[in-house]
Amino acid sequence: MIRTAVIGATGYVGGELIRLLSGHPEVTLSAVVAQDQREGMDVASIHPNLKFKVYAQMEKLDLKALVQKADLFFLALPDGKAMEIVPKLLSEKKRVIDLSGDFRLKDVRSFEKWYGIKHKVPAHLKQTVYGLPEIFRAEIKKASLVSNPGCYPTAAILGLLPALKHKIIDIKTIVIDAKSGISGTGRTPIPTTHFPECNENMRAYKIGVHDHTPEIEQALAHFTRTSFALTFTPHLVPLTRGILSTMYADLKKNMKQEQIFKLYRDSYKEEPFVRVLDEGELPYIKSVYGSNFCDMGLAVDTRTGRLIVVSVIDNLMKGAAGQAVQNMNIMHGIEETLGLRVPGLFP
Amino acid sequence: MIRTAVIGATGYVGGELIRLLSGHPEVTLSAVVAQDQREGMDVASIHPNLKFKVYAQMEKLDLKALVQKADLFFLALPDGKAMEIVPKLLSEKKRVIDLSGDFRLKDVRSFEKWYGIKHKVPAHLKQTVYGLPEIFRAEIKKASLVSNPGCYPTAAILGLLPALKHKIIDIKTIVIDAKSGISGTGRTPIPTTHFPECNENMRAYKIGVHDHTPEIEQALAHFTRTSFALTFTPHLVPLTRGILSTMYADLKKNMKQEQIFKLYRDSYKEEPFVRVLDEGELPYIKSVYGSNFCDMGLAVDTRTGRLIVVSVIDNLMKGAAGQAVQNMNIMHGIEETLGLRVPGLFP
Amino acid sequence: MIRTAVIGATGYVGGELIRLLSGHPEVTLSAVVAQDQREGMDVASIHPNLKFKVYAQMEKLDLKALVQKADLFFLALPDGKAMEIVPKLLSEKKRVIDLSGDFRLKDVRSFEKWYGIKHKVPAHLKQTVYGLPEIFRAEIKKASLVSNPGCYPTAAILGLLPALKHKIIDIKTIVIDAKSGISGTGRTPIPTTHFPECNENMRAYKIGVHDHTPEIEQALAHFTRTSFALTFTPHLVPLTRGILSTMYADLKKNMKQEQIFKLYRDSYKEEPFVRVLDEGELPYIKSVYGSNFCDMGLAVDTRTGRLIVVSVIDNLMKGAAGQAVQNMNIMHGIEETLGLRVPGLFP
Amino acid sequence: MIRTAVIGATGYVGGELIRLLSGHPEVTLSAVVAQDQREGMDVASIHPNLKFKVYAQMEKLDLKALVQKADLFFLALPDGKAMEIVPKLLSEKKRVIDLSGDFRLKDVRSFEKWYGIKHKVPAHLKQTVYGLPEIFRAEIKKASLVSNPGCYPTAAILGLLPALKHKIIDIKTIVIDAKSGISGTGRTPIPTTHFPECNENMRAYKIGVHDHTPEIEQALAHFTRTSFALTFTPHLVPLTRGILSTMYADLKKNMKQEQIFKLYRDSYKEEPFVRVLDEGELPYIKSVYGSNFCDMGLAVDTRTGRLIVVSVIDNLMKGAAGQAVQNMNIMHGIEETLGLRVPGLFP
Repeated sequence: MIRTAVIGATGYVGGELIRLLSGHPEVTLSAVVAQDQREGMDVASIHPNLKFKVYAQMEKLDLKALVQKADLFFLALPDGKAMEIVPKLLSEKKRVIDLSGDFRLKDVRSFEKWYGIKHKVPAHLKQTVYGLPEIFRAEIKKASLVSNPGCYPTAAILGLLPALKHKIIDIKTIVIDAKSGISGTGRTPIPTTHFPECNENMRAYKIGVHDHTPEIEQALAHFTRTSFALTFTPHLVPLTRGILSTMYADLKKNMKQEQIFKLYRDSYKEEPFVRVLDEGELPYIKSVYGSNFCDMGLAVDTRTGRLIVVSVIDNLMKGAAGQAVQNMNIMHGIEETLGLRVPGLFP
Repeated sequence: MIRTAVIGATGYVGGELIRLLSGHPEVTLSAVVAQDQREGMDVASIHPNLKFKVYAQMEKLDLKALVQKADLFFLALPDGKAMEIVPKLLSEKKRVIDLSGDFRLKDVRSFEKWYGIKHKVPAHLKQTVYGLPEIFRAEIKKASLVSNPGCYPTAAILGLLPALKHKIIDIKTIVIDAKSGISGTGRTPIPTTHFPECNENMRAYKIGVHDHTPEIEQALAHFTRTSFALTFTPHLVPLTRGILSTMYADLKKNMKQEQIFKLYRDSYKEEPFVRVLDEGELPYIKSVYGSNFCDMGLAVDTRTGRLIVVSVIDNLMKGAAGQAVQNMNIMHGIEETLGLRVPGLFP
Repeated sequence: MIRTAVIGATGYVGGELIRLLSGHPEVTLSAVVAQDQREGMDVASIHPNLKFKVYAQMEKLDLKALVQKADLFFLALPDGKAMEIVPKLLSEKKRVIDLSGDFRLKDVRSFEKWYGIKHKVPAHLKQTVYGLPEIFRAEIKKASLVSNPGCYPTAAILGLLPALKHKIIDIKTIVIDAKSGISGTGRTPIPTTHFPECNENMRAYKIGVHDHTPEIEQALAHFTRTSFALTFTPHLVPLTRGILSTMYADLKKNMKQEQIFKLYRDSYKEEPFVRVLDEGELPYIKSVYGSNFCDMGLAVDTRTGRLIVVSVIDNLMKGAAGQAVQNMNIMHGIEETLGLRVPGLFP
Repeated sequence: MIRTAVIGATGYVGGELIRLLSGHPEVTLSAVVAQDQREGMDVASIHPNLKFKVYAQMEKLDLKALVQKADLFFLALPDGKAMEIVPKLLSEKKRVIDLSGDFRLKDVRSFEKWYGIKHKVPAHLKQTVYGLPEIFRAEIKKASLVSNPGCYPTAAILGLLPALKHKIIDIKTIVIDAKSGISGTGRTPIPTTHFPECNENMRAYKIGVHDHTPEIEQALAHFTRTSFALTFTPHLVPLTRGILSTMYADLKKNMKQEQIFKLYRDSYKEEPFVRVLDEGELPYIKSVYGSNFCDMGLAVDTRTGRLIVVSVIDNLMKGAAGQAVQNMNIMHGIEETLGLRVPGLFP
């Protein structure tokens, strides 16, 4: 049994982690740690779906005690907090999956520019493995520190990966138009997430300046072997869970739609959580709601020579907690889908 | 392994049954039968959450073939259809859980009045067991034909049961004000379920004439030993899943709130799927979303001497498919929560 | 032209007041006063629908200056604040329409018990006129201080008024089950109004202890000539605007449905903003969305001898700002519907 | 007074037309014609917001009688129907504003390819004026037949117009990612608009093949003087009203953001219904909800040299009925904003 702890357990991602870990046959959930002042509270009073399932109490952060209890740590903390804990955990030979942005970028200057936070342990950035199994499965297996991808990057990278791997699109033309449900903003109420102001509403935000932009570029540069810039526009839409990402790029040369479908299907044929739809089909959020899948559909706009890819994920699952559990399974050499086979909800 | 078949597998309740049965460790799902013209289609093309999980195809209704393949039949058909199939299945010594209204009322005249349908096999009504485990667990265990309760009745009966069992309320004063998500109306698009006409909207309907009214009265008459009439008002609210039922009745005599809480807690202390909240707490739909739980909270309005009970369920789970699986477990003498322990989604 | 000022202009009710007053042919909107730290900001930056329509800036509260500019004051402040301003305004011979709870209850002990606030000017309570035109039109006409009804009370009182006036129901049996959109909680984000926690969710709250309860009782006591207690249960449902109130009471004697409809129609036949639906029809929120109407439908549950009334309003219009403008029209002897004839939005 | 008739009066656009025309000071609404079998029904029973405001009954289509009653005809019919009526109306010297797609494309082959409908009166296409006042105001003034723009095209064209007029973007790089509320699909219930299947859901559809694509290209070709192709992707999001369109194009040369803002502001400084937001601001649907405004915000992605424009409209107002009334005002030489100055709803 893998002894695990969740640090930052009171938010939505923390709740999903507890839900998944508590149902995982190879896992012991040894500690759940509140990142706010809610230590002592029952998990179920904070995550009502876990009532009668999880009886633990939120603990406060006491690293000394925690390292005795757990071997794998999930950190679901606000940006800037994980970097304060990770060195200590690693020095105790613990393995860590960090779900914040702290270790996602390899380049410390880039991190500090996009996040506006001074990095406290830049030396750790290089050794961190980016936890997208569809690219870095082998590295994840051996990693001590896995940086779990952001929600937008997961949907975007998976949608573009086969096209970049096979160099069929012009990288200078990539545009990513992403739409997210409101849970992606976290659990703290703010004016933008106040029901009367996001219901019957929709908005774009942080155009060109969202900190997920360099993360997408960095992961895709794995295939281009050269750094490049793309345009990323996030939007908030009035639903609780889900990201739909629509991606545009010019095809380098004329290709039949069937060829592109074949490239995509071949790229993902061994992947347990990526589903490429049939020609003529387009994905929608409800088909992945509550599950760890990423569904994608393709279209070629023959009039403009442009490839359009649409991908969908549940931002709290494949976009956060589900992918973290997938990474845990890989790190521990157990079946990658363990604890993640439960279908989502429809409708 | 229990060999099961779902007849009426293309609607929302059919989809939930397939989801639950396909994840149940003691069940083989031997056949899924379309009630419409969709035989031959993949289950996953109709229930997108089951892609990569269920690979079956919709069959057409061929009872002769079906009785060879399955021993337990779930019928999720429109009202009036199950009565055409049940006699044949019973004569073949099959066991049946019917999720329609066809066998819920003991009295054929009442059935024909409320449903406006002529009953074809009234003789079967008496032997049918009403599938609410919290009242009829012993009878369900031995039943050949279980009539699975309606969604509204499940929330209402569970909320009133302890009060009636202990005779603390005046039955002539019972008012049930129930609010349901739109999936309760089924999967066929109609003007009332057209998004622009139910979003940002709410309505009451069928006041005093909804066919779930006599079902609630009949179940509660189990405790009163006498028939009686109550007022039941259903409402449609703009959410997909969930029923919240607010129930009002005069207390027969002054009681301290703690006493009533004790009665409720004692009534349900052995029940795996009923959770009585603490004093001062009130339930909400998200706490049972996607799960088989019924949560309830109580309040005594001391100024009027009235007891108010609020109960919530997921209408497709404890209100339909989840309860049917619970009944199956009971009928087969296996652990009652098997296949139903997966927590719901939050948020 | 009536010179008006809105004090407390940054919330939702303040915004509706500005919208209505800026389109009113007999009104000059002389000042809009922020109740928070937003003085100096453009009205349109706070209420985006008023861009290109209202060019005023939020002022800070300076009563000395304000009394020079306006003759009629709308106060849309949090409970406890209006009582600090009203005496000064009245002493300057200004007329006031207060939309908070400060002056709704005649009895200071009742106010202090239900609101948990010490009243600073209890002497003013008696002279205040309760601003429900359907009962107190004559008094409103001459009033200096009108206390604008709460949103829940407006829907509830209008629904019960004809039944009580004609004494056809037993007042001890009244139950009011009210459902409100989220804008009713105000504009400040709190956990309960955070989109992921109220979308796909519904809850009852403050059962028996909501401060609108004594307000409803007090207004209805106008017809019963005796004080009495009823049960009032508010609920939050996931929509932005609208209240639907379902009311239950025992009929004193058997009455034909037509008779009751006649009583209701006769009671409201001169009322410009109350619409009694035809037999068999039930109201829904979308039919009053954005308008000042109150629609209501009736049903008699003949099996239980109970009358059920369903009423709907837009909580920000007839439930707040619209009714305030209606009161203004009455106070100034102009056509009661002036500035309020614009239809609502559908869908 | 302008004598008007609405043909196709039972859908959402028809309802908005009646709402606007019935409140317009220079208009007599002489006839409302049902396009389905609902003649004889009260307008208010089909459009509940018009109760107590409009007392007309739906008529059946009798052109002979209609031409006696009205001089200006609004046609809000499904595609393919207006072309059957328009010639007769024009031959009677009537003026027509058609809100369908029948007369939007100048080229009959293009129409027949994109719409899949054979055109019955192709000769009328050339003389039709495209009813976007921001481009064709002078032509609209004199037109007999105005083809009212589609909802997506209105948001897209207005967002791109200044950039194309001033030739600052490379037309081969234009991508339009549009998101629409569900009312855009019309009033007929279909599976995609069934509440449980579009709530908590989002989808792209008709990528590259939506019939609004050539309409956008044709209108923009007015500025490029040459035909070109762009990529247009529509999406359905779970809200009732509103379109948000995000547009991407490469800047031809480096420009400061201020310069682009200036171009946009100058282009629209005389326009009564287009609002260019300040730098750093981005528009959202709620700011135009129920109004005839188009709001837009700009961002330059300096890393990629791309201009991003975000525009929002209410699809039933500036995207349909509101724009039609604006066109009517222009055609009749009256103040362009008459009947359209009522602010929208917020929240």
